[in-house]
This record gives sequence, C-alpha cells and structure tokens, in this order.
Amino acid sequence: MRDGGAEAKTASVILAHPYEKSFNHAIFAAATAALRSRGLSVFAHDLYAEEFDPVLTRAELGKDETSDPLAARYIRELVASDLLVFIHPNWWGQPPAIMKGYIDRVFRPPYAYDDATGAAGSTEITQKLAGKIGIVFNTSNTEEVRENEYFHDPLEHEWLKCVFGFCGIERCSRRMFRVVAESGAEERARWLETVRDDIEAFL
Amino acid sequence: MRDGGAEAKTASVILAHPYEKSFNHAIFAAATAALRSRGLSVFAHDLYAEEFDPVLTRAELGKDETSDPLAARYIRELVASDLLVFIHPNWWGQPPAIMKGYIDRVFRPPYAYDDATGAAGSTEITQKLAGKIGIVFNTSNTEEVRENEYFHDPLEHEWLKCVFGFCGIERCSRRMFRVVAESGAEERARWLETVRDDIEAFL
Repeated sequence: MRDGGAEAKTASVILAHPYEKSFNHAIFAAATAALRSRGLSVFAHDLYAEEFDPVLTRAELGKDETSDPLAARYIRELVASDLLVFIHPNWWGQPPAIMKGYIDRVFRPPYAYDDATGAAGSTEITQKLAGKIGIVFNTSNTEEVRENEYFHDPLEHEWLKCVFGFCGIERCSRRMFRVVAESGAEERARWLETVRDDIEAFL
Repeated sequence: MRDGGAEAKTASVILAHPYEKSFNHAIFAAATAALRSRGLSVFAHDLYAEEFDPVLTRAELGKDETSDPLAARYIRELVASDLLVFIHPNWWGQPPAIMKGYIDRVFRPPYAYDDATGAAGSTEITQKLAGKIGIVFNTSNTEEVRENEYFHDPLEHEWLKCVFGFCGIERCSRRMFRVVAESGAEERARWLETVRDDIEAFL
C-alpha cells in the first residue's frame, strides 16, 4: 500500500508481442507471477495469442455496447481491476497496433471515461478509472539519448497523460528496457528483478 | 516544386476513420482531388473500407515477405510514391489502430528502411524514403492549449520524427483541425481550403 491508496486486490496484465519467446513474454510471466505471489487475482492476456481484433468499429464510435465478446470481457476486467500492467515493445514511438486497438476498444465510454454536453455546449469529461494503478513496461532497440533527444519518447506522454491521465489514473509508472537486441542473459535477469520491484512499489 | 526537390508525380493518400461521413473522409476526397487536378497519379486507400488487417505477424518481424496481398500492395505503392498523405483522427494521442498497423506492416525493412549489424555489433540503419514528401492531417476534439500543455501532442513527434525522420523523409508537414465536434459547415469549408493549400505548398 502506498500513497494512502486502497489495497490492490485484482490486476489486469496485458501483453502485445508476436514472438512467444520475446523478452516481452518474460516480463509478462514475471509480472503475473509477482502479482499472484502477493495474493492478487490476475487477469492475464496475451493479445496475439488470443487473436484480439484491434479495429474499433463504427458502432463503437459512440457508447453502443460492443458486439465482440473478447472486447466486452476486457472491458469488464478493466473496470474490475485495481492495478493495470501493459507490456509491449516500442514500435515507431507507439505500441504495436494490437495494443493500440486495446486502448481504442477497451478504454471506452462509459467505462473508462464518460462524456456529456455541458451547459455551454462544450464536452465535459468524467474520469472513470480514478484510484486505479497503471504500470507500463516497454522494450526498445534505440539508445536512450537518441530516444529522448531526437524522437522525444512519445510513449511517455501517450501512456501517462493521454491514457492514464485522461481517465483519472494518477498512480502510475513506466519503464523502458533498452537496448534489448544487445542484452545478455544476466542483464535480462536483472531487468526482470526491476519488473518485480516496480510492481512491489505499488503494493 | 520546393526546396529544390524533384517534381512529385505519384502520391499515396491513406485514410483511417470508421464513419464514411466523417470530416476525415472529406479531407481524403479534397486531398485526392487536389493531387489529381495537378496531374499526379494517386493511390488512394480508405483502410476501413478495404478492411486492412493491422496486426503485424510473427513472420513480418524480420524481413520476410508479407503473405498479405493488401500489405504487399501498400508497400509497393509506398515505394513508388513521391508524396505521402496520411489522414486520421487523434485517438489517445495516436492514430487509430488500423493506421498504426499500416505503419507497422508497410514501413518495413528493406523497403522503408534497412538495418544491418555494423562492425561494432550495433545496428546500423539505412533510410530508404529520402527525397519523399510526407503530409499528415489530423482531426481532434481537444482544445489546443490542453493538447499542447497537458497531453504534449505526441502525434507531432510520432509522425515527423519517429516515422518520417527515421526513414529519411525531411520535407514534411502536419496539421491538426480542431475542435471538429464544435465546427460548422463554413469552418469545415475553410479547413478543406487549407488542405489544398498545404498540399500545393509541396508541388
């Protein structure tokens, strides 16, 4: 327990990587195990293995119920989770499309936020995920200086401001492991310790 | 012609929006018509209408040929185009998943860039799209001050640095039309004039 927040009992861990032996998969296994070892109930989803369809439909532009049972399940679990973990590589300063589609189709009104037209005609947003914890783990093959100075690391604002901040998630963290393509077994083992430590910091 | 670049003869115009009467579709029609009226040959694609699958496959992680004929066609046209136009709404500071998947699956090695292991063991990137022109049109329902000061407008770096810059596209521009939900017919007509002007500036 931290920051006076309520104790986390339920978590969602969401993975996006097409190669089942990727380091992202190792992070997914380590994060899920760490949460379960602390007694949390965990919804763990490998979006590639579950063949999630990332394309938001015309009907989902508004507040219509989705007709996709998998998207509906992810939405129910998002709402039920106290702690959310997202794991994916840095592709073009963004998540892979399958993870972007999770954001598009699961962080929907009226579940993740709600919108209504206010008295002045402008849109008023209600944050619906306040109190939850958000944790992001990314992998990258870009050197830190080039990532920050040339590319400006868009993933930082995409997750912490555009997604978490927009929906009211204030207790959050993000970590990028790099350079994965040049890392060896010892470094990767240390990185998995860091994954456990980052999660522990919120429990 | 501008900046001493070669005259553009061929263009790709790529649209991502699920609603066929969206303002994004109006931009798509205006951009395509403006390019054709100047004599360019235009590959115009509505990713939703063409049911493009945005999920990069395990085989596409490396340099294997894609087995998806639509992705293969988009790649051929990307290589053949002197000018690239991308049109999509701002969803969570990123493109819709279907456009993110276009980036994942079409901006691939060895077509958009190439990578090789250098003498020191590090990865060396060759930019393959140098000399092309990149133009992005986005729509948004977020006020400009909040977009820039709170969300930090991640789309700017995503397109201009992470995609265009990475592949060697230096002649590029991006414009965000806002607030679309509160705009009327007159304002939209002016915005479509701006679309034509932004394209003309590169011809």
